[in-house]
Amino acid sequence: MGEDGKAPGRREVMRLGLAATGAVALGTQPAAADPRNLPPNVPPWSKGLGVGVGSAPYGRPSPHEDHVVRRTVSWLTATPHSSVSFTPLQALHGTVTPNGLVFERHHAGYPLIVPEDHRLMIHGLVERPLILTMAELARFPSVSRLHFIECTSNTGMEWRGAQMNAVQFTHGMLSCCEWTGVRLATLLAECGVRPQAKWLLLEGADAAGMTRSLPIGKALDDTIIAWAMNGERLRPENGYPVRAVVPGWEANLWVKWLRRIELGDQPWHSREETSKYTDLMPDGKARQFTFVMEAKSVITDPCPENPLSEHGFRMIGGIAWSGNGKIARVDVSVDGGRNWRPAELEQPILDRCLTRFRMPWRWTGEEAVLMSRAVDETGYVQPSIAELRRVRGLNSVYHNNAIQAWHVSPAGKVDNVQLG
Amino acid sequence: MGEDGKAPGRREVMRLGLAATGAVALGTQPAAADPRNLPPNVPPWSKGLGVGVGSAPYGRPSPHEDHVVRRTVSWLTATPHSSVSFTPLQALHGTVTPNGLVFERHHAGYPLIVPEDHRLMIHGLVERPLILTMAELARFPSVSRLHFIECTSNTGMEWRGAQMNAVQFTHGMLSCCEWTGVRLATLLAECGVRPQAKWLLLEGADAAGMTRSLPIGKALDDTIIAWAMNGERLRPENGYPVRAVVPGWEANLWVKWLRRIELGDQPWHSREETSKYTDLMPDGKARQFTFVMEAKSVITDPCPENPLSEHGFRMIGGIAWSGNGKIARVDVSVDGGRNWRPAELEQPILDRCLTRFRMPWRWTGEEAVLMSRAVDETGYVQPSIAELRRVRGLNSVYHNNAIQAWHVSPAGKVDNVQLG
Repeated sequence: MGEDGKAPGRREVMRLGLAATGAVALGTQPAAADPRNLPPNVPPWSKGLGVGVGSAPYGRPSPHEDHVVRRTVSWLTATPHSSVSFTPLQALHGTVTPNGLVFERHHAGYPLIVPEDHRLMIHGLVERPLILTMAELARFPSVSRLHFIECTSNTGMEWRGAQMNAVQFTHGMLSCCEWTGVRLATLLAECGVRPQAKWLLLEGADAAGMTRSLPIGKALDDTIIAWAMNGERLRPENGYPVRAVVPGWEANLWVKWLRRIELGDQPWHSREETSKYTDLMPDGKARQFTFVMEAKSVITDPCPENPLSEHGFRMIGGIAWSGNGKIARVDVSVDGGRNWRPAELEQPILDRCLTRFRMPWRWTGEEAVLMSRAVDETGYVQPSIAELRRVRGLNSVYHNNAIQAWHVSPAGKVDNVQLG
Repeated sequence: MGEDGKAPGRREVMRLGLAATGAVALGTQPAAADPRNLPPNVPPWSKGLGVGVGSAPYGRPSPHEDHVVRRTVSWLTATPHSSVSFTPLQALHGTVTPNGLVFERHHAGYPLIVPEDHRLMIHGLVERPLILTMAELARFPSVSRLHFIECTSNTGMEWRGAQMNAVQFTHGMLSCCEWTGVRLATLLAECGVRPQAKWLLLEGADAAGMTRSLPIGKALDDTIIAWAMNGERLRPENGYPVRAVVPGWEANLWVKWLRRIELGDQPWHSREETSKYTDLMPDGKARQFTFVMEAKSVITDPCPENPLSEHGFRMIGGIAWSGNGKIARVDVSVDGGRNWRPAELEQPILDRCLTRFRMPWRWTGEEAVLMSRAVDETGYVQPSIAELRRVRGLNSVYHNNAIQAWHVSPAGKVDNVQLG
């Protein structure tokens, strides 16, 4: 696109060197004569039979893409059983995260559950407690929804300063899938909720027995008890055979390997909502039950993993999301926030789903600081890190939705920086 | 849902035996005492550490789901290099097909292309021919679109009678992905299309050198030159590193491993649009260039692979799609087409994308014939096989979008049948 937001004219792209290198004389161009090292006219894969159909009943990516994987940070946690792996946002396209790359966060490793032996119990302040097999669960009417999932502590390492020099590690506890399951409201109608019931406890079947308290309003509104992601059954590390999907709210509430839902009249104050997943404020008090993952965005191209290799035309691209609804606007700055221009948003813009944005840029070797700022349909504007710190101080780990800044050096290197 | 299309009341589900078996006394229910063979109160996976984070940088499905795979039909083709594998529609959820399960159709096996050595050439009736590397291609502005892809010969084996007793084989040359790439219109603007150019030849880099002719109108309208599916780079068997995406049109046009686009003033009449992928009419003439995959639907639950195991409440569920736009309505019949009721459609309904439908049903052991009939936003109604044969006779293989009928026996067995 041109700087007016329209698609780039030929002249612009030409000027930037793309068409100039691309246009070659056709015909018998020998490989050796081309400065871009064209392959021989007939590459080996065009000369003989390829791999037969059915050789991989369940397919895998090309071996040439084996750098596109979830990654861990060795020093981050004491054990791999209570740890995290990050989604390679820098290498993804569109809005769907393929299941093999959805980030992981476990508290005691992930269990390998035999689905026939798994049960989901619903009890407490209900008229008719239930214990359901997975087959029984699947008989309920199902819904499918595309939603992002973001760990409460995504970008948490950045509270006190720029630390991780890779978007995979600053923002990769974020994925987006189509989730299929039954609305929790449907299950609760089946159980008959007693009037005193105000909170639900969700409990996982992993050895950590992960437990979180969920307000009944959210349970009845849009929470899904899901058995599938992106068309197929949940992956073991993402909750197989059944998990909670709590749209727009912190992923810690999306309890995996769900075995029990108890209804009560107050929250349980479990470990994961007292000593963890609370926000320690400047006055030393911990803010509890901060559920919503507020509007946020990040530029994934360029980013530290995707530096600038040549001058000229380049799309700046990234993703935006909000736990409060649809993305309404994303502004992009290339000068550290002095000037902002609205980016183009990819359609369809779905509720609490990743939205792609892009803005054309011509880079001629100057230093630059790239930033993106999301605005959601409620009018909420993604804050700067300075604005966040003014309210929340320096003690926080969770709920960091600050604007991310990438510094571009004259050599095209891209680094994580914090301004102001 | 009740028969009025609303969610099923508790009374209805209770009546059908679900809540009755589900409601058990809570507490220390020993496994042996429960007729449904409940697992021990604390299953092994809740007792010790699970699998650590990062053990699978690229994840895989649970081993308990290893029956959910693409399948081939051994007698269908002479060689696995020119053959097909089918998507397991009977086991999928929502609308996204996970990349590992997207159907395959190759004409000479699939090539294992080294992306750095691959080029896309655009030439012929253009002002400025181009040869692009994959890196150059990726610098163009990209779009992402969710679209179904259906092989021209999907359901083709059913022309002369009910043959394949499995929805995976009757309808499984169908998948749905989010495709990311550059609009072909953008590339053509870069090349400068000469006024005489009316058709494009798309050519693959496989050993079959697959070629198809595409009208310029479609090329400029919504055709995408795609490098990613469902968030990641194309899979090798689905066109890595680059393929055509021709929304709503037969998949044979979605040329994989795309290496060459030539612009000309008429179609090329290649093998794949003369001896193959044409519709042999009753008068012996072959209808050529029937591009659009018209409105179609199929019930995937129940289906031959998903029989009825017990009487009572059951959602009838399936998928609908149309190459002409959005699905407007799906009607379902349980009595072989005598009576029809509108099904509920899952939101969002996207353009040329799979749409889920569902209708509540109570089955009490009677014989039944289940059918679904899609109507798209143009008003086109999915035809019966009899209506289709009246126009096209019995010689066809391609473009069979007839209503599918599943016969349900009193024992709950589900079989592929054709009525009338």
